[in-house]
Amino acid sequence: MAASIALIQGASRGLGLEFCKHILKNKSPAAVIATCRNPDGASELRGLAAQHPGRLTVLRLDVNREEEIRGAAERVKESFGKLDLIVNSSAMLHPSGKGETSLRDVSAQGIISTLTTNTVGPLVMAKYFAPLLQKGGGGFGQQPPEKAKQHSGIIVNITAKVGSIGDNGLGGWYSYRMSKAALNMATRNLSIELGRGRPKVVCVSLHPGTVNTDLSRPYHKNVPKDKLFSTEHSVSCLMSIIDALNVDKTGKAYNWDGTELPW
Amino acid sequence: MAASIALIQGASRGLGLEFCKHILKNKSPAAVIATCRNPDGASELRGLAAQHPGRLTVLRLDVNREEEIRGAAERVKESFGKLDLIVNSSAMLHPSGKGETSLRDVSAQGIISTLTTNTVGPLVMAKYFAPLLQKGGGGFGQQPPEKAKQHSGIIVNITAKVGSIGDNGLGGWYSYRMSKAALNMATRNLSIELGRGRPKVVCVSLHPGTVNTDLSRPYHKNVPKDKLFSTEHSVSCLMSIIDALNVDKTGKAYNWDGTELPW
Repeated sequence: MAASIALIQGASRGLGLEFCKHILKNKSPAAVIATCRNPDGASELRGLAAQHPGRLTVLRLDVNREEEIRGAAERVKESFGKLDLIVNSSAMLHPSGKGETSLRDVSAQGIISTLTTNTVGPLVMAKYFAPLLQKGGGGFGQQPPEKAKQHSGIIVNITAKVGSIGDNGLGGWYSYRMSKAALNMATRNLSIELGRGRPKVVCVSLHPGTVNTDLSRPYHKNVPKDKLFSTEHSVSCLMSIIDALNVDKTGKAYNWDGTELPW
Repeated sequence: MAASIALIQGASRGLGLEFCKHILKNKSPAAVIATCRNPDGASELRGLAAQHPGRLTVLRLDVNREEEIRGAAERVKESFGKLDLIVNSSAMLHPSGKGETSLRDVSAQGIISTLTTNTVGPLVMAKYFAPLLQKGGGGFGQQPPEKAKQHSGIIVNITAKVGSIGDNGLGGWYSYRMSKAALNMATRNLSIELGRGRPKVVCVSLHPGTVNTDLSRPYHKNVPKDKLFSTEHSVSCLMSIIDALNVDKTGKAYNWDGTELPW
């Protein structure tokens, strides 16, 4: 059987980069396709590719451009023919770098940009890459003995606890919260469409915790030290969840510790 | 005390038009501000204005244009100085007129257009009109005796049952479902920001049922006759809910029968 193949979208830094490192280190001989907007500027990713010749492929992909997503899917199809896992990782808090603290900070353009990257991007990724996941070998997650319940691939959309409507007690961060709530709906919808018949693709939203990345940097001073995760810790937790995924767990949102997140 | 003032956004047809008729008929002497993209083309609305001189004002407002929303809020401020109720009614299923039945029908542009009208529009409405609702007299809803719990205004976002992530068992309609899930998050966020301190603005999402309007027309043949509501019946149900709203009910989504809708 061919080695498993994971595609990490938004892999130039933060969680996406860490997913690449983790899989290369812990999931040998799995191959990784790392996508980012600007491979030329992604020096750490290119360094990683040099360390893992033949196992890491870097691909240009701007999640805001449908044609680029379509083209990338064509190239993956030609080179690999299938996928076992996609992680949609890229996201922004807001074009300004700060979440809206009140309605005064809200702008149509700010919301639309955030929704386009955080929500529309992952769904359009699913549109073009789902056929490759349906050809996957089920190399990630847990396969039950019954053939009818086995999955061929997995889609992971990185969500956020603040994207839970039911859990929202503080308000603010309009664009980011709305983008993640809509992304959770996309996950749910995908799980239904791709869970019918066979092959089955498992689709979940995962909350990585508050992670030490550029996205959350303006807020680190407000986060207790033991609640601010390193990317290593967060990805290690998320991969434990992914390792245990199966069709019974599809269509839901999970915290980094595996507990279910309310919608 | 000045008469109550309701602003109905998306009032040229369907539910929005019916809200205008209902309030003019049943809530005298309340005044209605009816907004629509193209007042010149809204003949039924202009007929209604002729029947109710002085009580119905028609205002041009394209919910996709932030500058137009800002300008409309300026004009309402100058002419009325306050608002008691806003109903955000305009929505589209998808630019094609049909919800996506599968991923194949999904396009970035289709989702973005739907999100812009259904989600971004109502939130930007809240940005510019919330200050007028904070000056409202609480003319709609139910006022408890304790002053500290009284509200000055109400925001109603028309949502849809298919926008409930937890209730989603069928999938499809990606753009519409995602737009309404994100709108529900906006409602929740607004209820928090506008529910702090005083004056308080109550914010809810309301599901009108499946209503005989242009939006749902392609699907009427699949709806049992007793489940396809007339706009009169739907608005009558929704106004009963609005009449009973108070701060204890803010930040939630309700069905046309008053039951709570899961997120």
